[in-house]
Amino acid sequence: MRKPFEVTVLGTSSATPTKYRHPSAQYLRLEGNYILLDCGEGTQRQLSRYGLKMQRLSHVFITHLHGDHYFGLPGLITSMALFGRVEPLIIVGPPNLETIIRAVLSESDAHLPYELNFVTTQFDQMRKVIETDAFEVVSVPLQHRVPCTGFLVKEKGPERKLNLDACFRYEVPVEFYDSLKWGEDYQSPKHGHLKNDQLTHPGYKNRVYAYITDTIYDESLVPILKDVDLLYHEATFLHERVARARETFHSTSLQAAQMAKMCGAKGLIVGHFSARYQDATPLVEEARTVFPETEEAVEGQMYSVGSEVVEYSVHS
Amino acid sequence: MRKPFEVTVLGTSSATPTKYRHPSAQYLRLEGNYILLDCGEGTQRQLSRYGLKMQRLSHVFITHLHGDHYFGLPGLITSMALFGRVEPLIIVGPPNLETIIRAVLSESDAHLPYELNFVTTQFDQMRKVIETDAFEVVSVPLQHRVPCTGFLVKEKGPERKLNLDACFRYEVPVEFYDSLKWGEDYQSPKHGHLKNDQLTHPGYKNRVYAYITDTIYDESLVPILKDVDLLYHEATFLHERVARARETFHSTSLQAAQMAKMCGAKGLIVGHFSARYQDATPLVEEARTVFPETEEAVEGQMYSVGSEVVEYSVHS
Repeated sequence: MRKPFEVTVLGTSSATPTKYRHPSAQYLRLEGNYILLDCGEGTQRQLSRYGLKMQRLSHVFITHLHGDHYFGLPGLITSMALFGRVEPLIIVGPPNLETIIRAVLSESDAHLPYELNFVTTQFDQMRKVIETDAFEVVSVPLQHRVPCTGFLVKEKGPERKLNLDACFRYEVPVEFYDSLKWGEDYQSPKHGHLKNDQLTHPGYKNRVYAYITDTIYDESLVPILKDVDLLYHEATFLHERVARARETFHSTSLQAAQMAKMCGAKGLIVGHFSARYQDATPLVEEARTVFPETEEAVEGQMYSVGSEVVEYSVHS
Repeated sequence: MRKPFEVTVLGTSSATPTKYRHPSAQYLRLEGNYILLDCGEGTQRQLSRYGLKMQRLSHVFITHLHGDHYFGLPGLITSMALFGRVEPLIIVGPPNLETIIRAVLSESDAHLPYELNFVTTQFDQMRKVIETDAFEVVSVPLQHRVPCTGFLVKEKGPERKLNLDACFRYEVPVEFYDSLKWGEDYQSPKHGHLKNDQLTHPGYKNRVYAYITDTIYDESLVPILKDVDLLYHEATFLHERVARARETFHSTSLQAAQMAKMCGAKGLIVGHFSARYQDATPLVEEARTVFPETEEAVEGQMYSVGSEVVEYSVHS
């Protein structure tokens, strides 16, 4: 069984909540790891509505300081405190996010029973902002009206599986098995230099989820997003409003699909819909004309990141 | 027909939103005037859910800087801007509210197309914080863990109705009718000094709504709340948790009812329920043992302030 890597969409509106939609937030699960991407107003209630435990979250990533992407964060932080959190929470976001959050907290008498650690995003180039044993997150500068970054969430882990027959044959000691899984070669005292693919099968390729919002259509992202397993790309407008999209530094659904196609994404989710589209069907249909594997971001719905199994190709 | 004076409850939870409840907010309508009392996270969405127009609001009153009473305010302010508001908005609340809101707004590129005017509440004594032609609002210092005030919303307007027979008989010129309605006497060149009740009937008494949250049980409020037409009083806990209520500077439902009884309120709404009470029935029942005219605060429900008609008693 492959480790689960799933995204649950919590908000699909742009700019403001509507009667039918919440502002941006997504809950990511990568096996035992849980992170939040953006935290629009109402996110804590959306988490509770869909039975997702806020205390499991280790990291929150904020793309930019427009309210529809972080006005739910003060409430999430204080609710975590009220419910007795002790584990630290890491918040990744623009430089002034910490100032705002600390100011808000200092007006309350709630001394957090847990540590809040901030990591600052930067807007000049891509940066690895978080690295754990299980995943790493890279911030990607986007072109929006205020400083903004998208995020690449990259699974980490061995991508090779042992070819046990070969390992026995070449008498590889067990203590080298881990490094083989991570792709290293083995220097055998008896058999000489053994290349990794003589001792392993291809396993699962590490998966990448790309969270790209808010941004103008920007082809310079293509190499950065190359071959991602699942791309979430904002699609604020239908393409008939491309001028308005450009003016407000947003994208059309067609452009989101073009981006998915050009970068060779395996799947695309479109969201961040303007309040003018109560029904997102036309936006999804527009994207599918270019990129058939497009899904609509639906609140409460879970999406698998790269669910396909890589075929075995035996080298030994 | 009497002017409508109504409260729509938008949030009934304390501390955090729950799956079933939103944090504190109430929408007041006094004929053509619309004000908001508190603005917990999600208030703008609650307004839209119940078909209440945010742009009609002229004033927002914030009791204190615990998040469940104001974390929805930045979102409300920015949405008003996005929807093209031009009328100024007056925000009444604790001293540091303006600093926080201005800091949040300065991170966004949204230059508000309307004026935001702040009025600061004070915690030493009652103050008249707002006065318009139609109503005045008085802040009432409360005892909570952080500086906090309740608010009295007082209808303004003439309380007497003309006794036209008497006005004709005593030949009162029409231009004095307004001052008669406001309770003044009339000096007649022909008939001498005429007392107001010789020329008018009692009309409608101006109504008062009291919004009292968050507070420890505090009998010093009794004279301040005397004879209010409708009292909203927080009832965070059942009385079996009175020690917990005292410790956290909250009230029990029984205490809310005692307050309503002692001050001679004509009606009581209890709300601000702890998340431990998914069903508020026991809280309402507890209050009714002391004050039978108790209503549960229910989200989306509208409550009339002082709907009873004062009986005519003809003096002339």
